[in-house]
Amino acid sequence: MKLAILFGGSSFEHEISIVSAITMKKVLKKSTLTYIFVSADRKFYLIDTEKINSKLFSSGEYKKSKELTLKQGGFNIDGMFGSKSVEFDVALNLIHGRDGEDGKISSMMAFFNIPFISPRMEASALSYNKLYTKFLAESLGVKTVAYEYLSKSDERKITMDYPVIIKPVRLGSSIGVSIVKEASELDYALDVAFEFDTEVIVEPFIQGVKEYNQAGCFTSQWELSIIEEPNKEEFLDFEKKYMDFSRDSQVMAADIDQALALKIQNSFKQIYNTLFAGSIIRCDFFVVDGEVLLNEINPIPGSMANYLFSDFEGMVERLCRTLPKEQPISVDYKYIHSIQSAKGKA
Amino acid sequence: MKLAILFGGSSFEHEISIVSAITMKKVLKKSTLTYIFVSADRKFYLIDTEKINSKLFSSGEYKKSKELTLKQGGFNIDGMFGSKSVEFDVALNLIHGRDGEDGKISSMMAFFNIPFISPRMEASALSYNKLYTKFLAESLGVKTVAYEYLSKSDERKITMDYPVIIKPVRLGSSIGVSIVKEASELDYALDVAFEFDTEVIVEPFIQGVKEYNQAGCFTSQWELSIIEEPNKEEFLDFEKKYMDFSRDSQVMAADIDQALALKIQNSFKQIYNTLFAGSIIRCDFFVVDGEVLLNEINPIPGSMANYLFSDFEGMVERLCRTLPKEQPISVDYKYIHSIQSAKGKA
Repeated sequence: MKLAILFGGSSFEHEISIVSAITMKKVLKKSTLTYIFVSADRKFYLIDTEKINSKLFSSGEYKKSKELTLKQGGFNIDGMFGSKSVEFDVALNLIHGRDGEDGKISSMMAFFNIPFISPRMEASALSYNKLYTKFLAESLGVKTVAYEYLSKSDERKITMDYPVIIKPVRLGSSIGVSIVKEASELDYALDVAFEFDTEVIVEPFIQGVKEYNQAGCFTSQWELSIIEEPNKEEFLDFEKKYMDFSRDSQVMAADIDQALALKIQNSFKQIYNTLFAGSIIRCDFFVVDGEVLLNEINPIPGSMANYLFSDFEGMVERLCRTLPKEQPISVDYKYIHSIQSAKGKA
Repeated sequence: MKLAILFGGSSFEHEISIVSAITMKKVLKKSTLTYIFVSADRKFYLIDTEKINSKLFSSGEYKKSKELTLKQGGFNIDGMFGSKSVEFDVALNLIHGRDGEDGKISSMMAFFNIPFISPRMEASALSYNKLYTKFLAESLGVKTVAYEYLSKSDERKITMDYPVIIKPVRLGSSIGVSIVKEASELDYALDVAFEFDTEVIVEPFIQGVKEYNQAGCFTSQWELSIIEEPNKEEFLDFEKKYMDFSRDSQVMAADIDQALALKIQNSFKQIYNTLFAGSIIRCDFFVVDGEVLLNEINPIPGSMANYLFSDFEGMVERLCRTLPKEQPISVDYKYIHSIQSAKGKA
C-alpha cells in the first residue's frame, strides 16, 4: 500500500502533527510512505521519507523540499517540462486541529478526487466543534456531559455549580482549557479560552471521573480497538499530550466488565455510523453512575491511536479498500439546451 | 471593486449556477467582474467576461479557456515563463448545491487565503444539510417545521399524517422533492429522493401555507432585504426554479403587518448571527397560526437574491470590506525545540 501522510497545517497543533507523522514510520512498516507537509503558511512540500525528523521543520530546512500543487487527481510537482503527479494510493490526513480536523483537508481531497482517510467534511464540521458534537450526540441518542455555551460577546455568567471546566469550542489537545474551582477564577479562564476561540463551552468538572477511550472504524465490518483507561492527571497539559502523540507501543485494555464494554462500543458505533465512514476516530467517554457519556470525539487522534489496535496497519489497508465515494453527478446541459431552443423559436 | 464570480461545480445545480452567474453581469454593473468556471470535472477555467453566455458551457467551448491552478493567495495561470495570479479583490461563491454550498469552495478559499463571499465552512455544513439545519435552528430558539428522518437503510415507515413532503437531506432547488398525498405513494417518492441522497427528511405538507423569504447580511450593520411572498404553485419544479435563477429586477414587498415582519427579521438575524458572517443568504419561512417557522436556509440563493435588495451592489461592496478573517496562528516550534534540547541533554 502506498500512503501519503498529510501533516502540519495552520494549526495550534502543527507541531504535534509533525510528531504524529514521524511516529507513523514506526507503525506503518509494510507500507510505502510519502510525506506531504503543509507548512504553517499553507504550502505543500514533498518531504523525503528517509530524512524526515522534527528538526527539518523547526529549522525551516523543509523549504528546500519540492513544493507541490493540488490538481485534479493528485499533488503535482511542476517543472520546466510539465507537471508530474506524486505517486500514492491513498492520503492519510494526520493534521490535528485547524485545517485537518475542521474539514479543509477533506474538502480539498474530495474536490481534487484524491482517495483519503479522514472524517469527511460534514463529520469534520460536527466533531471539530464541541457544541455541534453535542447536537449530533443528542440526535443519535448518545448522552453527553451537561454544558453551557458562552460566546465572547455574552455576559460572563454561568449557572452551573463549581468546579467547572472551560473549553474553547473548536480546539483539541487541551489548548485553552482550564479547570475553574470557584467563581473568582472564571474571568481569567475565559480570557485564556477566548484567546483561542470566540466561543466556549462550560461543563461540570467531575473529580476522579472514570474515563475510557474507544477507537475504531468500519471497513467491511466493525474494527474496534481495545478500550483504554487513559492515564491522567487533572488533565493532560499540552507538553504531556505532545509526548502522547508519539506513542507507538500497545497498551493494556481497561479492566472493565463486559456489560460496560458493550455500552461503550455501542455508543462508539452510534456516533461513527455512517457519518464517519472513511476515518479512524477515537471517542472519549466518561462513565458516571453506570451511564456512558460522550466527552469528546477525536476526529484525527494522536498518531491515529495506533497503540490501541493489535493490527493497525492491516486495518488501514482494509479501510483504504473500502473508502466511501462521492456520488457521481453527470452534467448534460439539458436545461441550457432547452432554454436555447426555446429562445431560438421565439 | 474587482469581483471574481465562482460558478459551475460538480453539482446537480451546475446549470442554474451558470444562469445565476450570467445574471450578475446585469446586476453588478459598477464592478469589474472576472469569471472563474468550475467545470463538472472540477477544473478551473478563466472565462472571458465579454463573451460569457450559456452556450459557451453547453457546447464545451469553455475548454479552450485558460485553466487555472489554486495557489496561496489566488488562482494562477501557469505559463512557460512562470505563474501569474488572476487579479481580483474578492471571490463571490455562486456555486449552488454540491461544492459551493457544502463547504468545499469555502474550505479552499480559506486555505488559500483568498477573500471570499460565502457562508464559511461550518455554516455551509449546517445549512447544506436539512437535518443539521433543524439542530441549528432549535439551538438558537428558532422554530422549524416538524420532521421525521429516514436513511436509505431504514425501514420505510413514517408516523406523520399525510400529505407529507419528502426532501433529500442535502439538495436544493427542489431536486428530488416530492409531495406524497397518501401512503401508497410513499415508496415511489422515497425511490426518487434516494436517487439523489442517502438520507431524507419528511415534513407535513401544509396546503396553502403562507411562505415568506428574507435575505440579507451583516456588514457593519444589518442589511436586510424586503420580505417577499414567493409566487408559488404546489412547489416550483426544477425548470421554473431555473428561470427563477435569472431574476434581476426588483419585486414587491409582501403585504404583511409590521409585527409579523419584525418576527421574520428577528428569526433571520438569529440564524445568521454570527455563523453566516461573510455571506448573503436567504431564509425561507412558513407562517402557521401566527408562528414563524424556518423552512429552509438558502446559503447561496439564486442570483444572490439580488432582486430583493434596493442597493444590492452597494451591499456587496460593503460586505467585501467587512469579511471575517481567520485567526492568525503563528508556529514557533517551541515544543519541538524543547524536546530536541531535552534529548540533547540525555
